[in-house]
Amino acid sequence: MNTYQFQTAGKIVAGSHSAEQTAAYISTTFGSVRSALIISQPSIQKSGFLDTLKSNLLQVGISCQLFAGIKPEPTEAQLTEIYNLLSQESFDVLIGVGGGSVLDATKLLSVMFTNPMGIREMLGTDLVRQAGIPMVLIPTTSGTGSEVTPNAIVTLPEEELKLAVVSRHLYPQLVLLDPLLTLSLPPSITAATGMDAYTHALESYISNKANPISDMFALESIRLISDSLVEAYQNGDSVVARERMLLGSMYGGMALSSSGTAAVHALAYPLGGKFGIAHGVANSMLLTHVMEYNMDAIQDRLAVVASVMKLPEVLEPSSSRAAEAVIERIAEWTRVLNIPQNLRDYGVQEEHIDSLTLAASKVTRLLNNNPKALGMDDISILYRKLLVAL
Amino acid sequence: MNTYQFQTAGKIVAGSHSAEQTAAYISTTFGSVRSALIISQPSIQKSGFLDTLKSNLLQVGISCQLFAGIKPEPTEAQLTEIYNLLSQESFDVLIGVGGGSVLDATKLLSVMFTNPMGIREMLGTDLVRQAGIPMVLIPTTSGTGSEVTPNAIVTLPEEELKLAVVSRHLYPQLVLLDPLLTLSLPPSITAATGMDAYTHALESYISNKANPISDMFALESIRLISDSLVEAYQNGDSVVARERMLLGSMYGGMALSSSGTAAVHALAYPLGGKFGIAHGVANSMLLTHVMEYNMDAIQDRLAVVASVMKLPEVLEPSSSRAAEAVIERIAEWTRVLNIPQNLRDYGVQEEHIDSLTLAASKVTRLLNNNPKALGMDDISILYRKLLVAL
Repeated sequence: MNTYQFQTAGKIVAGSHSAEQTAAYISTTFGSVRSALIISQPSIQKSGFLDTLKSNLLQVGISCQLFAGIKPEPTEAQLTEIYNLLSQESFDVLIGVGGGSVLDATKLLSVMFTNPMGIREMLGTDLVRQAGIPMVLIPTTSGTGSEVTPNAIVTLPEEELKLAVVSRHLYPQLVLLDPLLTLSLPPSITAATGMDAYTHALESYISNKANPISDMFALESIRLISDSLVEAYQNGDSVVARERMLLGSMYGGMALSSSGTAAVHALAYPLGGKFGIAHGVANSMLLTHVMEYNMDAIQDRLAVVASVMKLPEVLEPSSSRAAEAVIERIAEWTRVLNIPQNLRDYGVQEEHIDSLTLAASKVTRLLNNNPKALGMDDISILYRKLLVAL
Repeated sequence: MNTYQFQTAGKIVAGSHSAEQTAAYISTTFGSVRSALIISQPSIQKSGFLDTLKSNLLQVGISCQLFAGIKPEPTEAQLTEIYNLLSQESFDVLIGVGGGSVLDATKLLSVMFTNPMGIREMLGTDLVRQAGIPMVLIPTTSGTGSEVTPNAIVTLPEEELKLAVVSRHLYPQLVLLDPLLTLSLPPSITAATGMDAYTHALESYISNKANPISDMFALESIRLISDSLVEAYQNGDSVVARERMLLGSMYGGMALSSSGTAAVHALAYPLGGKFGIAHGVANSMLLTHVMEYNMDAIQDRLAVVASVMKLPEVLEPSSSRAAEAVIERIAEWTRVLNIPQNLRDYGVQEEHIDSLTLAASKVTRLLNNNPKALGMDDISILYRKLLVAL
């Protein structure tokens, strides 16, 4: 049996100025809506977009509440606190506007409102019992692709863990991809989130669960991101580059929804859970090292990636040279994009390697997707590569 | 404002043997389902698949009714008759198993059950008021891509017309793409439906409404179909070719849902409405002629198509040569696939050209998507090219 699946957001609207039309799209998508909860983060509130959104919603008769205090990498405690604050209210739709943390928080709150369960009981795959409040997701970074995935990540600081809720009830009904909302993203976040999106695509493409549908999305994501990541970093005002990054990150999310990510993500989560390293940075640090580890199992696939990335090495006779060129290009990006490469900068020491390794080894949901098995020693060696002597 | 949209079926499951699991996928997708109506066609009933499906559904506690009498290119009268036959019953889910006519009939019946409107009142865009009965669509041809479009075509014989119902309520909740169900498709139907799918992709790619999302699906569809159409025709048992054709035809449907087809389809509908020419055949007959008419407006886009089709002419210095090579390849296919090329074989005479032209000129929904405007004279000249002296 060799079946594969694809599922995505209910409706996707893309293009410049699309977010200005959110109220109109909500009406055509959901019919009668009276009350909305906007979930966002401080930087978006400062941009003024949320005020515009609120007044547009009021104009079509939708009353709004706003919670713009989502913090990066939300914890179980924060989410429960927000839920308790709002649980007496009733909303027809939740609108999440922000980066991956906001989108994940919106997805989780949506199902918390309708399921008599705590977050902890939802952790895992397919444990959410009922559909949530309908959602509109408006990403303002090009990274997680969370707007089209069934996943939401929760940080559990006491256990030093980041874990996922995976459920078909976490797909939103409407997504708006407006590149104009991403123009003001600072270069460092453009870099980290962009590398995160690229990691989703590349891991989906080499995943054991890769299939013809995920391959299409993964390669298109790789093509778009390769073409525009450095441009978006160096010239944040480029609407063309920003639009390509948004599409590329969405396709990365579509790819991983169908095939799943692998060892890079498995090793990245403990770095987030124990040391608060942002998800995109953790992925970027690990990407070349894990791909080198995987090399003998993925050479042919990386050669295809090289051709999609239009690397000159694809013209060379050996596909191994093309595959290596992909890893070299990723390493070049991390230098050009100034992505941290040393775990010591985050307080990681030799003595932490064992507990990181143990934590990563438990992320079997993702390790099982990796084209090469990783033992404890392999994981520990990979972490040590990022412990650069100062 | 340059926005674009994408919407598709709720969940897509693909791969050999996936259709055998229909009952299980229905349970995981819809939760509690007690009664199903299977809608199909005689050839599928003969294959025995419907008996297997019924017994699998019964095993999970779903009672079934079967209507396997859908005729090609269903008419308003046929659909109304079927509805009247079944309207006293109540079904939790409709399961359409068959070619484009069966899928379109299932989509229309789904909304007829829940909307107090006749089909005639639904003809047009966004006129269906309420969601229909949830649907599972299982295509057994690789052609229409109807399983992922918001369109259903109805034939009105009295008016000699084929018209479309276009509604977001026509997307199914679950699609199963099982290449094993298409192995027994006769070569002539493989050819006509395959050319139909290719036409969807090519027209979507040169449509005025083409956009980054539709382009991805269109080019992937073109790549897969170019790669496997002749193989599927000559060697119907090739599961690999059949799976690629099913995916290619689905992507063609995704592309046209986002960007729309154009003049080929506008001119094809009157040939179906007045002379009963199968939709795929009508499209195939018109495709090269309409593309030649469009050539000066689409040369650069056809050059990209040539590269996706791996035509050797892409290596030549002029992109016009590559563009012409696409049209030559399509013409070659119609010969190899034995697709009729003369309207006289269907009873069309010189005297019919004016009324065909008038009918086509009214399909403004699609003509507006064409990269070059078509006057009455242009349409009439195109039809005349298919009136070959015997």
